[in-house]
Amino acid sequence: MDRAHAQSLDATDPLARFREAFVLPPGVIYLDGNSLGPLPKATPGRLAAVVEGEWGQGLITSWNAAGWIDAPQRAGAKLARLIGARPDEVVVADSTSVNLFKLAAGALSLRPGRKTLITESGNFPTDVYVLEGVCALAGATLKVLPSDEVVSAIDEDTAAVVLTHVHYKTARRWDMAGVTAAAHAKGALMLWDLSHSTGAVAVDLNACNVDLAVGCGYKYLNGGPGAPAYLFVAERRQAQIRSPLSGWMGHAEPFAFEDRYRASADIRAMLCGTPPILGLAAMEVALDLQLEADPRAVETKGQSLCRFFIELVETRCAGHGLALTGPRDMAERGLHVSFAHPDGHAIVQALIARGVIGDFRDPDIARFGFSPLYLSHAEVWDAVEILREILETRAHERPEYRARAAVT
Amino acid sequence: MDRAHAQSLDATDPLARFREAFVLPPGVIYLDGNSLGPLPKATPGRLAAVVEGEWGQGLITSWNAAGWIDAPQRAGAKLARLIGARPDEVVVADSTSVNLFKLAAGALSLRPGRKTLITESGNFPTDVYVLEGVCALAGATLKVLPSDEVVSAIDEDTAAVVLTHVHYKTARRWDMAGVTAAAHAKGALMLWDLSHSTGAVAVDLNACNVDLAVGCGYKYLNGGPGAPAYLFVAERRQAQIRSPLSGWMGHAEPFAFEDRYRASADIRAMLCGTPPILGLAAMEVALDLQLEADPRAVETKGQSLCRFFIELVETRCAGHGLALTGPRDMAERGLHVSFAHPDGHAIVQALIARGVIGDFRDPDIARFGFSPLYLSHAEVWDAVEILREILETRAHERPEYRARAAVT
Repeated sequence: MDRAHAQSLDATDPLARFREAFVLPPGVIYLDGNSLGPLPKATPGRLAAVVEGEWGQGLITSWNAAGWIDAPQRAGAKLARLIGARPDEVVVADSTSVNLFKLAAGALSLRPGRKTLITESGNFPTDVYVLEGVCALAGATLKVLPSDEVVSAIDEDTAAVVLTHVHYKTARRWDMAGVTAAAHAKGALMLWDLSHSTGAVAVDLNACNVDLAVGCGYKYLNGGPGAPAYLFVAERRQAQIRSPLSGWMGHAEPFAFEDRYRASADIRAMLCGTPPILGLAAMEVALDLQLEADPRAVETKGQSLCRFFIELVETRCAGHGLALTGPRDMAERGLHVSFAHPDGHAIVQALIARGVIGDFRDPDIARFGFSPLYLSHAEVWDAVEILREILETRAHERPEYRARAAVT
Repeated sequence: MDRAHAQSLDATDPLARFREAFVLPPGVIYLDGNSLGPLPKATPGRLAAVVEGEWGQGLITSWNAAGWIDAPQRAGAKLARLIGARPDEVVVADSTSVNLFKLAAGALSLRPGRKTLITESGNFPTDVYVLEGVCALAGATLKVLPSDEVVSAIDEDTAAVVLTHVHYKTARRWDMAGVTAAAHAKGALMLWDLSHSTGAVAVDLNACNVDLAVGCGYKYLNGGPGAPAYLFVAERRQAQIRSPLSGWMGHAEPFAFEDRYRASADIRAMLCGTPPILGLAAMEVALDLQLEADPRAVETKGQSLCRFFIELVETRCAGHGLALTGPRDMAERGLHVSFAHPDGHAIVQALIARGVIGDFRDPDIARFGFSPLYLSHAEVWDAVEILREILETRAHERPEYRARAAVT
């Protein structure tokens, strides 16, 4: 195990060419693409064309002439190819939180006799919070259960089970096909949050018979800070589902300006307000890039990076108190790796000061993401060497690394 | 009445210098800033700095280092100065439709014994549609009434009256203080949609004792296509109001990752998902520019442009069947002017072909917006001359102007 071994792994990397497609600041090893993906080099030029050309010169006519009005569906059709969906089953719109609200309420509309939503405790907070909001307004009950009680709790009152496919802290990956089938066995719907999956692990929603899904544009998909999110509604659910966020873009004929809402018969019924064109433009650049890579190759390389990182940390940093959280089996996890350590926060700060950017999650989790499009095994080696030096010199115990600040 | 008179009006325009702050394509007279405002010249540079610097180089650290996380409140505090609100009463976030959903549901939460929302028929469609969605999910009743029946219908079951301050078609302006007082007299709350007001007519929410408001960023505010919208909650309502869209950015401590939702005690409780940084950056540039102009001077100039346009159309285009819709008294209207004409759609298309960009609204409305920051009386003169030529030569009857396309 040495740096030459890492380089030999990189020598056969089928995705190596993608690194050149990203802006990666010198001196930085970026292990936080699971929180905010880096800037694709093609994005600034495309944004300038949209802003200076389409907006500046085209003005209002660009809604039609530049195809702005179709951007949510156009980007959705691209995204669909990454998650095993049909082009007309996905739109890019709003935030993950807002989309989750639409689909959780939509699930209640699809199961009118049922009044319970189920999720797991420790799910990404906004997922639980949004489900609380849906249930409070709709008069439904939210059950927040430990992960090992979720499946057995599904019953005839369950409208939907709502889970994040890859856990934001532990990276534990749910069995998408198995849990979806368990929900269906009780007549419940399945709603997956793919925020930590898409662009990382291979997802095939229709092969798993999934009903509903949402996900985030700014993590592994590299759509930019606060990028528009996406949502999926299986074609067989589109005729019946009702979004409570019945804004004009969801109307069957938005520009007929009818007096009353009449939902679009297709996925556009899940749109709400005017689409955010700047964010969508950046998102489309990122999706076009992602689509050049085979999702299976992406997952395979990411698993190799994660396996290598875990192995290096557990051997070269042994005895310093870092404990892997989440499963060790790559088939049961996503592409970020979390180690618990009592000084987790300070260690992450010391790493950032040395150019290794990961992040920290309460109470004691140092989290590192291994985005396959731009990272190399050599960088993993270098990152672990820096971690080892920090731990061996106790650099993380310096006072400047003790301060706590909000990090997303 | 000649072009020299128009030029004499422009000679004393206190806002003349603002024209240079916008990109205005040569050969275009842009009378659609009420639908999509033009590009401020400062926007591309700022966006490039955010994208290439803050995102590209700063990566995840920019959430704190570049102040991204505070952008909704920072932009909100700027917007507050345009609408007579306090800095901590406004956030910029989501779309107008989504914000209306939050506040309409929030109004029901503030008036738990009441189960009716009131709006007017002919209101901008998304407003009615969103209220339908809120009521369906919350088990409330929506009354959609002719404008002259709205005030008399307010009763002890009315949770809120929801109106658009300036009507999107007729430009008729509601008496904000009077209707708000009438709602309060019955214990109801008042929620105004300011989409066609802010940046055009002077608005003073707190002087009118308004409870709640929403509005759009991409019309007179020039925030760009699909710009983030804004919402206002009067300070006295902030402790009790509950947004059903309880995403993590509305939590009292978003980065504490608590298991259950605990709403922020301030305006941040109205936030939901991760803020759209690109859209917010463009919005802040536009707000900084707007804040350089006195809102009273903006309204005064806009009224002069509208009055001049109406006068010119009614004299120089007399006998061609154009009929002003909405009030003639400037105190009762906003800054767009609509004329009904059986060939309204074709006339707008013929004007666009000649570089005069307005828009069309069903069934027969040719609509023209007079944004005060960049338009001149000379342009109004020129636009009406082109309109006169079209009507006199019947140019609008050519087949190419008959086609109908969706226009926002």
